[in-house]
Amino acid sequence: MKKWQKIVLFSLATLITTTLSAKEDKVYRLKLATSWGVSVPILGEAPTLLKNMVETMSNGRLLLRVDDPAKHKAGLAVMDLAKTGQYDIGYTASYYYKGKDFKLIFFTTVPFGLLPTEQHAWFEYGGGKELAQKVYANHGLIHFQGGNTGMQMGGWYKKEINSLQDLQGLKVRIPGMGGEVMSKLGVLAVTVPLGELYTSLEMGTIDAVEWISPVFDMNMGFQKIAKYYYTGWQEPASETQFLVNKKTYDKLPKDLQLILETAMSKVAKGILEKSMYENSIAWEKIKTEHPDIKVASFPVEVLQALSKANDEILDEQAAKDPVFKEILDSQRAFIQKARAWTKMGDYAYINNTSK
Amino acid sequence: MKKWQKIVLFSLATLITTTLSAKEDKVYRLKLATSWGVSVPILGEAPTLLKNMVETMSNGRLLLRVDDPAKHKAGLAVMDLAKTGQYDIGYTASYYYKGKDFKLIFFTTVPFGLLPTEQHAWFEYGGGKELAQKVYANHGLIHFQGGNTGMQMGGWYKKEINSLQDLQGLKVRIPGMGGEVMSKLGVLAVTVPLGELYTSLEMGTIDAVEWISPVFDMNMGFQKIAKYYYTGWQEPASETQFLVNKKTYDKLPKDLQLILETAMSKVAKGILEKSMYENSIAWEKIKTEHPDIKVASFPVEVLQALSKANDEILDEQAAKDPVFKEILDSQRAFIQKARAWTKMGDYAYINNTSK
Repeated sequence: MKKWQKIVLFSLATLITTTLSAKEDKVYRLKLATSWGVSVPILGEAPTLLKNMVETMSNGRLLLRVDDPAKHKAGLAVMDLAKTGQYDIGYTASYYYKGKDFKLIFFTTVPFGLLPTEQHAWFEYGGGKELAQKVYANHGLIHFQGGNTGMQMGGWYKKEINSLQDLQGLKVRIPGMGGEVMSKLGVLAVTVPLGELYTSLEMGTIDAVEWISPVFDMNMGFQKIAKYYYTGWQEPASETQFLVNKKTYDKLPKDLQLILETAMSKVAKGILEKSMYENSIAWEKIKTEHPDIKVASFPVEVLQALSKANDEILDEQAAKDPVFKEILDSQRAFIQKARAWTKMGDYAYINNTSK
Repeated sequence: MKKWQKIVLFSLATLITTTLSAKEDKVYRLKLATSWGVSVPILGEAPTLLKNMVETMSNGRLLLRVDDPAKHKAGLAVMDLAKTGQYDIGYTASYYYKGKDFKLIFFTTVPFGLLPTEQHAWFEYGGGKELAQKVYANHGLIHFQGGNTGMQMGGWYKKEINSLQDLQGLKVRIPGMGGEVMSKLGVLAVTVPLGELYTSLEMGTIDAVEWISPVFDMNMGFQKIAKYYYTGWQEPASETQFLVNKKTYDKLPKDLQLILETAMSKVAKGILEKSMYENSIAWEKIKTEHPDIKVASFPVEVLQALSKANDEILDEQAAKDPVFKEILDSQRAFIQKARAWTKMGDYAYINNTSK
């Protein structure tokens, strides 16, 4: 080989290497742990929708691996998986972790609190997002709303509740804040393994079960064994969360950060809308197949006692934790304004069109 | 220059040109025409939010130019601008074009129709999207939801409405379907230029004005001159639209199509949430500054007559146009199911927590 040939070859080889490595975009591979397997209605499919969206939008530069609880074995510890960096993203519900940090409840839902669109308004425009980032920064996580499953029903009761007295000693499967509030009124809030729930209610080992809403409840079959379906007060707007490890997020280039955020927003939007759709269809089916089911609300004295007990729990916590108080005050101030508008807007409309 | 030097230089030049042109991604420049200038609350800023999002997510490969009505001079003909290809995207409201095609109303809102989340559920999961694409395909457009401004109030009235008789000969500024429906009840539905609206109401040239909702109405100042603020029936869920020229859309690569669609979805989500936020804040302000304002609903006989007149208009149209009938039937079937769930869910909750 002549000298000039060597030079040409060397130049070409160098140039090709340099050009390709400079132009070829880096591929980011993230791992997501979810709290809900694919068999869970609506929430089960959400991480896969996210995966498909970010991979298409990024043209393959952002890849997502989705692991469900059958794989990572930590459905109720997904926040820790993301916090420690074992996973880059956790798809879960903030209030699962109230034992670690009571403030986390505010980003899912609070008894007697905001409705879905009210809560979204507070979160996006009323300071909620900044409060969420402040709380989650302590856990090395960035918080994104993951979708709202809407109003939860108050639960399936075998007997009608006509007074506070009727609640005394009643065995109710109701977890979280709802359970704590009912306990203050004399209810025995019990835990029952998922597989035994139906039989426990059928056999009378428990008197009532709070589950979710028509589409989720129908799958459990409670409509076959309990006649009273009580309206909701304990979880008016259950929002899920995408919790992203901050170090992972900070390493992503700006375009991929926004692709991820925007895809999460679209998935979240779909969850509220699909919950509305599926609950509407499911309730129609329940009602048709079980016309004897009575939808009822607790009597005023019970609702007022529940509301009072709830305020006591929240106020106690606020006295201990200034950031808890800051978030509570922010939500309480906004609910006054938002509910006034909801009542003269949507509520008056429903009232007027139902005559 | 020696021969081998020439060869090296030529090789380098060729290689650089080839590599750059192969790797450098094509830039797509789209033009968007909007119906609303930046001074319009909430809707005014939406196209710019979209522009910023798609440009960041695409890393500059998808650029958007936003022209407002001051530029394109066709605020109420934006659909045509997108249809003819003068613009690639129109940001507008479908029901502005009901004169061309009455079916287009269903994708914005219909009197006594679906509420925002109900309408989104119908659109995304209940067949609405497919019906929208079927209708807009005839116009060479692809339909994307552009954001819902929520419930519209029934309007500002100088006198209380206590009966159907009170509506006879009343001069009301109310456009669209609302105006057609009220006309059937003896109202004179009038058109008044924007700049004369306040004075017309103040001077009594007109008796009432239907505008939008608290945040929009407050800017107009109607609260200073009319005491009765009637609750809504005529536009329960006004959805805006991004209408994309089909040829433009089909030319975009898959990643940019999804970036555009997902960004539109996030912008749309924000509009419902910001409308909730801004209306809550605005109503608080109106109420504080004008405590004498009375929020009222029309009497039952008036509401029933409005609802009947509305059904007559819709049924007449359905008899003439099978696709109109198909959409009407689809919305009517879904509203039965969705409203039952809304009533046992959110409505019962508001009812119970207001005691």
